[in-house]
This record gives sequence, structure tokens and C-alpha cells, in this order.
Amino acid sequence: MRKFFPFLDWLPKYQKNFFANDLVAGLTVGVILIPQGMAYAMIAGLPPVYGLYASLFPILVYALLGTSRQVAIGPVAMDSLLVAAGLGALAITTMEEYIVMAVFLAFMVGAIQLTLGFLRMGFLVNFMSKPVISGFTSAAALTIIFSQLKHLLGANIPNSNQFHQMILNAFNNLSSTNPYDLAIGVVGILIIVLLKRWNPKIPSVLLVVLLGGFAVYFLGLESFGVNVVGVVPEGLPSFNLPAFELDRAKEIFPIALALALVGYLETISIGKALEEKTNKETIDANQELVALGASNMVGSFFQSYPVTSSFSRSAINAESGAKTTIASLYSVLLVVVTLLFLTPLFYFLPNAALASIIMVSVFGLIDIPYPKSLWKHRKDEFGVLAITFLFTLFVGIKEGILVGVLVSLLVMVYRTSKPHFAVLGNIRGTDYYKNIERFGDEIDMRDDILIIRFDAQLYFGNTNFFKTQLFKQIEAKGDALKLVVLNAEAINYIDSTAAKMLMHVIEEIHTRNIEFYIAGAIGPTRDIIFTTGIIDVLHKECLFVKINEAVEYFDHPGNVSLLGKNVAHQSRIFGN
Amino acid sequence: MRKFFPFLDWLPKYQKNFFANDLVAGLTVGVILIPQGMAYAMIAGLPPVYGLYASLFPILVYALLGTSRQVAIGPVAMDSLLVAAGLGALAITTMEEYIVMAVFLAFMVGAIQLTLGFLRMGFLVNFMSKPVISGFTSAAALTIIFSQLKHLLGANIPNSNQFHQMILNAFNNLSSTNPYDLAIGVVGILIIVLLKRWNPKIPSVLLVVLLGGFAVYFLGLESFGVNVVGVVPEGLPSFNLPAFELDRAKEIFPIALALALVGYLETISIGKALEEKTNKETIDANQELVALGASNMVGSFFQSYPVTSSFSRSAINAESGAKTTIASLYSVLLVVVTLLFLTPLFYFLPNAALASIIMVSVFGLIDIPYPKSLWKHRKDEFGVLAITFLFTLFVGIKEGILVGVLVSLLVMVYRTSKPHFAVLGNIRGTDYYKNIERFGDEIDMRDDILIIRFDAQLYFGNTNFFKTQLFKQIEAKGDALKLVVLNAEAINYIDSTAAKMLMHVIEEIHTRNIEFYIAGAIGPTRDIIFTTGIIDVLHKECLFVKINEAVEYFDHPGNVSLLGKNVAHQSRIFGN
Repeated sequence: MRKFFPFLDWLPKYQKNFFANDLVAGLTVGVILIPQGMAYAMIAGLPPVYGLYASLFPILVYALLGTSRQVAIGPVAMDSLLVAAGLGALAITTMEEYIVMAVFLAFMVGAIQLTLGFLRMGFLVNFMSKPVISGFTSAAALTIIFSQLKHLLGANIPNSNQFHQMILNAFNNLSSTNPYDLAIGVVGILIIVLLKRWNPKIPSVLLVVLLGGFAVYFLGLESFGVNVVGVVPEGLPSFNLPAFELDRAKEIFPIALALALVGYLETISIGKALEEKTNKETIDANQELVALGASNMVGSFFQSYPVTSSFSRSAINAESGAKTTIASLYSVLLVVVTLLFLTPLFYFLPNAALASIIMVSVFGLIDIPYPKSLWKHRKDEFGVLAITFLFTLFVGIKEGILVGVLVSLLVMVYRTSKPHFAVLGNIRGTDYYKNIERFGDEIDMRDDILIIRFDAQLYFGNTNFFKTQLFKQIEAKGDALKLVVLNAEAINYIDSTAAKMLMHVIEEIHTRNIEFYIAGAIGPTRDIIFTTGIIDVLHKECLFVKINEAVEYFDHPGNVSLLGKNVAHQSRIFGN
Repeated sequence: MRKFFPFLDWLPKYQKNFFANDLVAGLTVGVILIPQGMAYAMIAGLPPVYGLYASLFPILVYALLGTSRQVAIGPVAMDSLLVAAGLGALAITTMEEYIVMAVFLAFMVGAIQLTLGFLRMGFLVNFMSKPVISGFTSAAALTIIFSQLKHLLGANIPNSNQFHQMILNAFNNLSSTNPYDLAIGVVGILIIVLLKRWNPKIPSVLLVVLLGGFAVYFLGLESFGVNVVGVVPEGLPSFNLPAFELDRAKEIFPIALALALVGYLETISIGKALEEKTNKETIDANQELVALGASNMVGSFFQSYPVTSSFSRSAINAESGAKTTIASLYSVLLVVVTLLFLTPLFYFLPNAALASIIMVSVFGLIDIPYPKSLWKHRKDEFGVLAITFLFTLFVGIKEGILVGVLVSLLVMVYRTSKPHFAVLGNIRGTDYYKNIERFGDEIDMRDDILIIRFDAQLYFGNTNFFKTQLFKQIEAKGDALKLVVLNAEAINYIDSTAAKMLMHVIEEIHTRNIEFYIAGAIGPTRDIIFTTGIIDVLHKECLFVKINEAVEYFDHPGNVSLLGKNVAHQSRIFGN
């Protein structure tokens, strides 16, 4: 029960002082949500009021089912762009049909997300590594900041989801900057930044909204060309089951799939990024899929188009001190009240004030220390971060995530294809066997014994590497060599390709009159040694628990401890 | 020098008795090559004689540069199909232009392969695991066997590169079977199979060719509708540099890239499959790219269309006992002599005899024991094999390889995302610490200590798994727990995502008043512990070489060996 309704977990622990935090955060987000939602609906090609419809039921459902306490659900810029691009490619003639398709799209997106959630496919998100999330978050934050430039400057800058195009558009239209808009925006940014330093408890964001509205109203700034939110239409959405048609479903399935995955990745990565800052880990990947799917599906019954987690509003929500998803209920309340009664009040809100709020909130998501530390110690992971960042910035959000995940998997595969490989020696006066390159001075080397450690699973991607390195070391030892010991402690798996290679290698070593022992094989590896037939070429007495026991057996074959043998030979497959 | 001209390696060691083997194999392959080459040229949409042109210079160049001694290069059915499909999509009006484009395609394919070879991209082939090669080989062998049905039956069966379509086509045309063709084919198969059992040294394949030709000629079987090779055109190809045009190059680049990769994969996988049988590993992946690239490029100067390694002829070559690439020189010689003088002699060769030879040779490539053993012990790798097999058979050669490689990488990644995880205990009377599930009876358990071993690198894909499992074990221990020891012997890497997780985990464990030690970390892992800041939350004195030392330190913090400490703290980054 608690699994499906996470609020049952925290509701009983709800503290009094949470109330003020949640109320302020919820109202602040709500105030942003209303104009943002309308703007995003227009990006999606829908009448503005559909952005408000998308800000009601999806948020309520997520508050009940979601596992992140700060993620703010609703209409989002990137997804709105995807909706426009997807539906624009279809042969739709009337606005009525377009609306029906957008709502049906939300239904499909929800159905796909729910299905993935019930199939417990949320583990897919494990493959988003920290470098990918960091690069993606920073790039998305930059994209959103620059998308607000046109509101901050009051200039007529065309939209784009590619950074270089945005910059270009901004430069070309700098001349149309409205100084009053710019002044409102800059003052807004200063108020938020300075108040936060002075006393973080003051609801600076709400203050900027109020001050901005009053300034426009009382100073009559509208007549100086200051851009304001303007007329907000009235009334709540009605209940309607989306009309399911198989042909239609087939037609929009690819768009729905893309939206379902991108939306999910956005929610999870925003959730994880926020979690990272608070150090409290509550997000359950499968439950998030269920929550997001249900939000979209229920939303589609009330004229919502596809929603997901909003970068800017989630940041504002966290920034404003939201403690639980109750905050979002206040946002919804504000939307309801607005739709019913308050639309005239939003008329004078200047866009530049909203832009300043979004820019400051999102600025905090840009991550500098982490890439810096990666650059210092992990050039490969820095590369993953940089590629994700650049792709997200210059190509697109979904491409950025996709490429990031693929590259980080490739790095992992490449790493295991050329793993660390060490020649070991006995540290004088101990039974430690360690890398001769690290402990050269303290080590007694023997000409007749080669001890090697291979630090990875043995699988098809590194069998050639293993063989080449092993024989290089054997050649280096020359004719004196009589025994090769493979320390298998770090070999956590042997696949069938590697098993075949290992058998060939052991046979080849035997033909050179050299013995081959394996020491320290862990249980699952012992099982593999027994089932693949490696044991037939190796012989049972050549398996040891520790290197010193292998060397001891080589020097004095009589002195063998029965217990050691039993431990070395234990296997699920053949017993002791 | 020897690297680029592998023949310098074996030529000085050439043995007298190799001569007969190479001669027989070379002539046998040559006899197959001539009619096959002509048939394949027709599949590619070219006049038959271009199949012979493709059987001259590419083979010579490969003999000098190739690292496999048995692979037979030349025109190939699959690649001919790709050429036809690729060029057919372009706006080509005359046969002259079509020929120019096919030859230019060979030039482009060669250039791409040479570039990849010089960039040392041959390592890509490491990612073809045994299950993929086995599944692919068996499926390709089946495809080729069934493609010969029409010749064996003398029936008019349309070609297809998809197995189910082939079977369907064969069934629909069974009625047009010619009993004389069928008789020749069946007798051919019996001769080869039985002679091989009786005395493998008899050149049964050549015998079948000769007997078949004589039978048709002396018994006048042609009048009974027996299909024969027929008229072979005369003359050698002239030298011509392909006319390079940038527009043209751009246009056919995608086809050339596909052919370059598929051709390379075919050559390498055939080479590896043959190598597998002889147990001598000579193939160098980068040099093979260079050899194949040079073969295609030089070939294109003499009117060759794209070539690669032929499944059937390579099998026949190995079967007939070829020892070195000198065998292929005899094939070329036969093609030259044929083009100049002998074309009439091939006239009476029955297609059914050729089909019987191909079918028997390729039959041996179908691999049964390996999938059987995988099915028994490695269900996951059996799955990879089965998927590769089915895709190759029912979808296509290149799709089969591609899907196989992707699935085997996915299996590897999935495996490391949920690795083996063990709770260890002290085996009575020893200093061994082993899995309590495997050695339960012999182990002394302590309530105040939890010792765990995680058998994989720690990376973004398994950090959640690690954390969940660890805390599950900690909860199970209850309040008595005072120490957690992580045996890190099998953790061969910690990426930055996992490092962050590990720091959070250690802090969380400390807040519960439990100590956390790490034992047995190998050098590269120690370096990571020092550079990522894990050491700051862990403290230096909590690193140990062995588990028993960690437990000893916990029980008697005074008794610490200085040497053990030095070894445990060694790191490239901060020294001792």
C-alpha cells in the first residue's frame, strides 16, 4: 500500500513548520506555473488555456503517487516542442482535431509509462551515470536560461532548442531590447540573489512577482512597451474519455514512445539531481514510472496534454523550501482559483519578472565542481560528461541523454576490454603477494614462478588481451619458468568465449612443460571452472585458495592441507 | 616488415609435403570459383565474366597480406546481393555506367577498409563473442546449403536471402525437379562423404568435378535437361584507374560502408571459425582489414567488384587440406588459364555436382555441440547464440551479426548490473573468509561483524544494487552489529558515480555507530579510494590487506603490523 501511495509514509510525520514552507513554495510555483503553462501550450500549438488544464489533475495524481517530494509536474517546454513536432507531421486540418490528438497523445504516453512501470523497467535509469546527469542538467539549465533572454530583454527573439541558434537569434535581435523590461528583469535577479544571501527565509520569488505586478499597474509601464502576461481565459476543464481508435494509436505511437521515455528521463534526472542536493534518497524508479503514467492518463481525461517534471519549477519549488508534495496542492488550488475568478489579476504581471525568477532558480543547477574534479582524476568520465553536455546543448535534450548513456556504457565496456593486469611477487617476511611495480623494493622475485593477477571478469571483449599479456610475461621469464599462478580473486566471471581461450592457453602452457595453477577463485568462478571443462585441462590439485599455498604445493607437493583443498574445490555443481 | 607481409613468416618454413596439399586445395577451389564467381556476378547484376575478374588480383593481394592461411577471397553471394541492392537504388541507365559504378564501389570499399585498418580499428572484432560467431556461422551455412537446392534438384527456384522465403520457394517448385540433376547431386554427396570416411587424402572434391563433367559429356546428359555451366567468355581484364568523382563517392558511401563492414566481419568470422578447428591462431584483426582493403582497392584497378572471404570456398579450401595461401595462387592460375584457353572445357560441368560439393563442405560449419553445452550451463549465452542464429537465418547476415554483438554486450552489462554478492564468515581453524552459503557448517559467525564481498566493478549500473544489498544485510544483523568489512578483492574498479554512493553509504553507516573497513583493495582501487575522497570519510586506518587483519584490528586496535599498514595504504597518488 505504502509502495503505491508514498504519501502514506510521510503524511503521519508531517510537521507543523512544514506547512509554511509548503504553502509558500506551492503558491510561488503556482504563480509561475500559470503564465509558463500558457506559454508552453502555445509552443505545443494549443490554445493557452490547455496549459492550465495540464496543471490540474496530473499534479494531483503525482502528489499521491510520486516518490520525489520536490519534483514539480506539469506542462514543460521541451515536451511541448516534441508534441508540436510530432503532431505537426500528421495530416490534421482543424484545431478541434489537433486538440483531440494532443489529449489522446497524453493518454498514450501515460499508458506506455504505466506499462513500463508495471513491468518494472525503471532499472533502465540505473544506466544514467552521474557524469551523464551532471552534463545533461547543466546543459538543460543553460538552455532554459537563454530561452528566457527574450523575456528579460523584452526583445522579439525566435525560439530554438539548440544553443548556438539561440545565441545567434539573441544577437540578431539585441537592438529590439526594451529598457523597461530589462530593468524589471535585472532588478528581479538582484532582489532574489541579494535577499537569499541576506535571509533565505524571505519568499523573494513571490516578492518579485508582486513588486513586478504593482510596478506595471501603478507606474503604467504597459504604455512603455513592457510585456505582460495579459488576458487569461476562464473555467475548469470537463471530464471526457479520450476516444480510442486503433489507427490513430498506431499513427502516434512513435511520438508517444519518445515523449514517454524523454518525459520519464526528465522526471527521474530532475528528481535525482534535487535528491543529490538534499542527500535524502526517496526516489523509486518503477514507482516514478507508475506515477508519471497515471498523471498523464488521468490528465488526458480532463483535457491535459503530455506533462512531465519541469526543470525550472522543480528548482523553484526546492528553492522556495517545499518539504512535501502537499506544496503542489497549493499550486493546483491557485490554478483552480485563477481559472474560476482571478484571471484579471495576472494581467499586469511582467514577463521579465517571471524570466528573472526562472533564470536565478535554474542557474543553481549548473554544476561546476563535479566536472572539475572529474577532469583532475577521471578523464574518461569527464569525457562522458562533456559529450552529454555538448550534445544536450547543441543537438537536443533527448539526443544528449541517449548519447550520454551510450557513451558511458561504451567507456565501461572499453575499460573491461583492456583491464589492469599485474605481475605479483612475495613481499619479504609476509604471505602477501602484491604488484611488483608498486612494491618492487620489498619483493622477493623467483625466476621459476610467474604470478599474475587479472583485474576484470574474463569475457569475449578481453580474451585476446588476456592471452597476449600472459604470453608476453611468459616469454619475458624465459626458460627458467616452471610455474604460472593465476590469481583469480578479481576475476568475477568467465564467459564461454574466455573459458575456451583459457583451456587453449593452459594446454599451450603445459606443452611448454610449465605448470599452471589458479589461486583465489571465488565461488561463482569455481562453478564455471567445473562446468566448462577447464577443470579437465587444469586438474583439480591445481586449484588453491591462496597464492602462498600454491607456491608451497609447488615447492613441497607433500605438504598439502586437506582443509585448503576442500575449500579450493568447493563448487555448487559437483559439491566438495 | 613481417607484420605487413605475413607470408615472410611462413614461406621460409614451407615444407615439401605442403606442396601437394596446397596444389589440390588450390585447384579444387579454383574449379568451384570459376562457375561460382560467374553466378555471383550475375546476382550482382554484372556480366558473368566480372566474377572471374574479381577472382584474380584480390586473391593475389590477399595471399601477400592476409593473416589467415585458409580463407578464400573472391566474389561472394551475400555481398553480390548487397551490390545489386545498393546500385539498383541509384539512377543508372546503361550497363557501362553500372559496371563503372560497381568497380568504383570496390575502390571505395577498399579505401574504407584500409583506413580502418591503419587506424587499428580491428579491435572491433573482439566484440564478436563465441556464441555470436557460432550462431552466425551455423545460420550462414544453412542459408548457403539451401541456396544450392535449386542446382541439386535442377529446379527453377527463385533466390532469396531469407531462410523461410527460400524454403517456401523450394516447396513451390519441387515439381520442376530434374531426376538426372538430382541423381548427379546425390551421387556427388555420397562420393565425398564416403571417400572422406574411407581415406581423407583422396581429393574427392576434384573427383566429383571430373566424374560429373565426363558423365555429362559421354552420356550426353545435356539432352536430358541436366544444367551445365555452359559458355565461359575469354580474355584477361585490363588495367584502369577508377575515375574518382566526389559526387559519386558521396552517393555510394553508405553502400560502400555497409559492404566494407559486412565484408570485414565475414572475413574475420570465417577466419576465426577455421582457426578454431585447427587451434592455430594467426589472425591479426588490423592486418586483415589492411589485406582486405588492399585486395578490394587493387582489384578495382582490374575491373573487380567488391570481394570478401567466401564461406563455401574457404570451407572447401580447408577441407581439401590447404596449408598456406600459396593454395590460392593455384586458384588464380586456374582462373588465368581458364580465361585464356580453357573456357570450352568447363562447358559440360554439371551444376548439381558443384552444388553437392558446396553443400557437403558447408555442412561441417554447422555447430551443434557448442550450443548444446551452452544450453546446459549458460542459458544467457545460449540465448545470444540463438538470437544471432535466428536473425541471420530469417532477417539477414549483417542484421544477424549486428544484433548478436549488441545482445552479447547487453548481456555483459546486465550481468555486471546485478553481480554476485556474498556474506563471508571465518572458516574454523583457518584465516579463510568464505561465503557462508557455501561453507555454512564450517563457519564461525559473529553477531557484531558483517563481512561482505561484492563480485564486480562498482559502476553506475550497479551502485543502487550494491547499496540495497548492503543495507539489507545490515538490517538483518540488527543492533549487535558494530563493524562492516567490505572485501574489495573482486572490485576491480570504482567509477565516480559509485564513489559518491560509497561515501554516502559510509557516512550513513557511521551515523548508526557502526565502523566500516575495506580489506583487500587492489592497487588501482586503492588509487581511486585516495583520489575520490573516499579516504576522507573512511579514514586511513580502516584500510587493510586481509580480512583477518581487519578483524584483528577491530578486536585489538593496538596490535597493528606496520608492514600491513604500509601495504594497505600504498597508492600511486599519495605514495605510502
